[in-house]
Amino acid sequence: MNMSRAEERSRERLVVVGGDAAGMSAASQARRMRGPDELEIVAFERGHFTSYSACGIPYWVGGDVPERDRLIARSPEEHRARDIDLRMRTEVVEIDVGGSRVRARDLDSGAESWTAYDKLVLATGARPIRPDLPGMDAPGVHGVQTLDDGQALLDTLAATEGRRAVVVGAGYIGVEMAEALINRGYEVTVVNRGKEPMSTLDPDMGRLVHKAMEGLGITMVDDAEVTALRVGADGRVRAVVTEEAEYPADVVVLGIGVRPETALARAAGLPLGDHGGLLTDLSMRVRGHENIWAGGDCVEVLDLVSGLHRHIPLGTHANKHGQIIGAGVGGGYATFPGVVGTAVSKVCDLEIARTGLREKDADRAGLQYVTVTIESTSRAGYYPGAALMTVKMLAERRTGRLLGVQIVGREGAGKRVDIAAVALTAGMTVEQMTALDLGYAPPFSPVWDPILVAARKATTAVRRGTA
Amino acid sequence: MNMSRAEERSRERLVVVGGDAAGMSAASQARRMRGPDELEIVAFERGHFTSYSACGIPYWVGGDVPERDRLIARSPEEHRARDIDLRMRTEVVEIDVGGSRVRARDLDSGAESWTAYDKLVLATGARPIRPDLPGMDAPGVHGVQTLDDGQALLDTLAATEGRRAVVVGAGYIGVEMAEALINRGYEVTVVNRGKEPMSTLDPDMGRLVHKAMEGLGITMVDDAEVTALRVGADGRVRAVVTEEAEYPADVVVLGIGVRPETALARAAGLPLGDHGGLLTDLSMRVRGHENIWAGGDCVEVLDLVSGLHRHIPLGTHANKHGQIIGAGVGGGYATFPGVVGTAVSKVCDLEIARTGLREKDADRAGLQYVTVTIESTSRAGYYPGAALMTVKMLAERRTGRLLGVQIVGREGAGKRVDIAAVALTAGMTVEQMTALDLGYAPPFSPVWDPILVAARKATTAVRRGTA
Repeated sequence: MNMSRAEERSRERLVVVGGDAAGMSAASQARRMRGPDELEIVAFERGHFTSYSACGIPYWVGGDVPERDRLIARSPEEHRARDIDLRMRTEVVEIDVGGSRVRARDLDSGAESWTAYDKLVLATGARPIRPDLPGMDAPGVHGVQTLDDGQALLDTLAATEGRRAVVVGAGYIGVEMAEALINRGYEVTVVNRGKEPMSTLDPDMGRLVHKAMEGLGITMVDDAEVTALRVGADGRVRAVVTEEAEYPADVVVLGIGVRPETALARAAGLPLGDHGGLLTDLSMRVRGHENIWAGGDCVEVLDLVSGLHRHIPLGTHANKHGQIIGAGVGGGYATFPGVVGTAVSKVCDLEIARTGLREKDADRAGLQYVTVTIESTSRAGYYPGAALMTVKMLAERRTGRLLGVQIVGREGAGKRVDIAAVALTAGMTVEQMTALDLGYAPPFSPVWDPILVAARKATTAVRRGTA
Repeated sequence: MNMSRAEERSRERLVVVGGDAAGMSAASQARRMRGPDELEIVAFERGHFTSYSACGIPYWVGGDVPERDRLIARSPEEHRARDIDLRMRTEVVEIDVGGSRVRARDLDSGAESWTAYDKLVLATGARPIRPDLPGMDAPGVHGVQTLDDGQALLDTLAATEGRRAVVVGAGYIGVEMAEALINRGYEVTVVNRGKEPMSTLDPDMGRLVHKAMEGLGITMVDDAEVTALRVGADGRVRAVVTEEAEYPADVVVLGIGVRPETALARAAGLPLGDHGGLLTDLSMRVRGHENIWAGGDCVEVLDLVSGLHRHIPLGTHANKHGQIIGAGVGGGYATFPGVVGTAVSKVCDLEIARTGLREKDADRAGLQYVTVTIESTSRAGYYPGAALMTVKMLAERRTGRLLGVQIVGREGAGKRVDIAAVALTAGMTVEQMTALDLGYAPPFSPVWDPILVAARKATTAVRRGTA
């Protein structure tokens, strides 16, 4: 079949599974490189939307973004106008790797059919973790993974009189949803399994987030295992129940995190990593499969600092993957070398950022390290709006190589993490960082940028450690 | 004499010439490393203040910083409390290198005396360029180099009814003083010799600054050579006169730039570079002189991108130099590898930043390059406050090595230059930069950070250039 197809058709067919960032970036980039006479592109998306910013959902729910469609970078019609045969509300339910074809189901009619491919891109994304607890499916309980989820939550908020919201989970989605609900005038409680919020930070830095969120009027409940959602006589959610207490809730938002959506890939025998994500080579080709690429939230990526693979669902990586896959499919050459694990978020005016390794990541990677923590300001101390920030820095013992940076502070703190992200990528030592020529003027930075202050202190700690 | 002194005194004597950032940082760091029983420190400062932020003067004049003393990091008394023998209002008028001594004059009494040194630090700073034109010394004409200058300007502003201010020069000091005077409610005209303001940018980027400053209500006069300052019957300045026109002025601020203050060093036969600054080795020791260090605005620094020496008067470098000198004097080891030429500034909400080489710098260094310019936003396009920015990027022809970045935009634009500064330091190519793992969330960045957008376009330009 495979050979006859190549003869039958004068052009190749690319099949894309998943119509969000990675999939449609790949399709668009491939289309830019090869016209419709050379390459047919068929894309399947099981939802109602393409190419949208899931990261923007909290800001839409919170009211900063006035309408849903602002989050859509490119609509199905726009993709079709570029000669992409986009099949919406159509779910791929099987990949036949040996036969180079996928089976797809029209979710409205239920009809199924096979589509052959010469090249296949898997961009199936991630699915939210939903613990199997009583009441989890009750009205008033919402995830915020898709635009449909966001709309359902907004509908609930509009229809509900009570003003008590409980957010389950205190990672990025949890803290951003806490902000959204505060902005909507809710009394917000965040119930969190970890010892501190933001487990992507070390606990000492998470503690600062805890305190700052309390300062914003948010009730923070850490170290709490949710055992059930209590439901009222009308079937709607009434409270979040933990082993220790019960938190009344008119609405519950789940921000527990996501896992790679790789059931299809697993069934097809494609290689998965420890975190359940697809494993690819540096050109984002699925390992061992010449004609299959994968990118976005369904893959694992190489952590350049630890040398281990991680699952990091983030739009910015998905877009990069899509570009690289599109180049490869189009006959070009590009690679995704890996990540250093940069992330930034905010809760009202509190900014939270991290890159590289936490202490436990370094332990796991077999790295020994020193840590320092400093306080500084976003601008010269005498300049209006100078905001406090705390910077924690990890450096490898003996070599002094930068391993990670975490920042918690007010306006102007977060994006400073980029300085450390580039230094990590370049393999700089903290001593090399002390000489970095960073932009200085009183409205932008103290004369020693906080990153330089941390690097100096870390340099001293490394020296002492090696003495 | 030299040998007898070493025998006479049980401790070494460090003499520091200049009591601002570089000098007093060096003195403080040396003191941290060696106590008063080991090292005597004598510091001479001809002015009234020590360790102050000259960069903060525009914000004090503009009213953002309420009082002068907020700009002073450490007073003479604080230095003396750390066993530094600080002699204020005392100017060093001669260095006797052969005799290892300096001659200093008490500016109040006129008395002079010699002080011997074992180690000498020169931190004489820079002096403002004041063209020798008629009217230049008239009341109402002000430089803004020192705290005394700032106070004199504020006194003039308080005593002057007219609201027309002319700023001569459109570099960092010029544009920052334009903002200060706008904030004070003045009608501001900026008269500038160059074709565009901000000659530290390429002219195409300077043009954006020109337009934006006009948008702020500032009258911009480019390509204008000042020939005189017209003075009224009362002796006060009345107008700035150029070859083409005359600009009425109730107050004139000079922001023409500075030159290294190295008359003393020149007279002493110390090595100076093409820009008139002292030349040092990487540990900031004056070349060929084992016991003399120099740092801050009086030295030239190595530009790591071009391989040429430059004069970059900037507080952040001066502080670094001071640290390194102090470590060296104290018997430790530290080096200043050089700069990449990062600078950031603002005029009201307009942010201006640059790092690395302009086109003409690259030409001068013998480098061939491609340039790209992109427009993007500081945040996700749909997020409130997303502000436009223009990023220009230079990359070396064939190799694709990053050579420079210039940014003109609104809030959130300026400090992004740090990403490029670190990439320049690490010698990254623009293609390597496309894979940088920068912090992304809608309130902080578009999904492709503007720096990544520029890097992608530059990568394409490099490829086309080498095809």
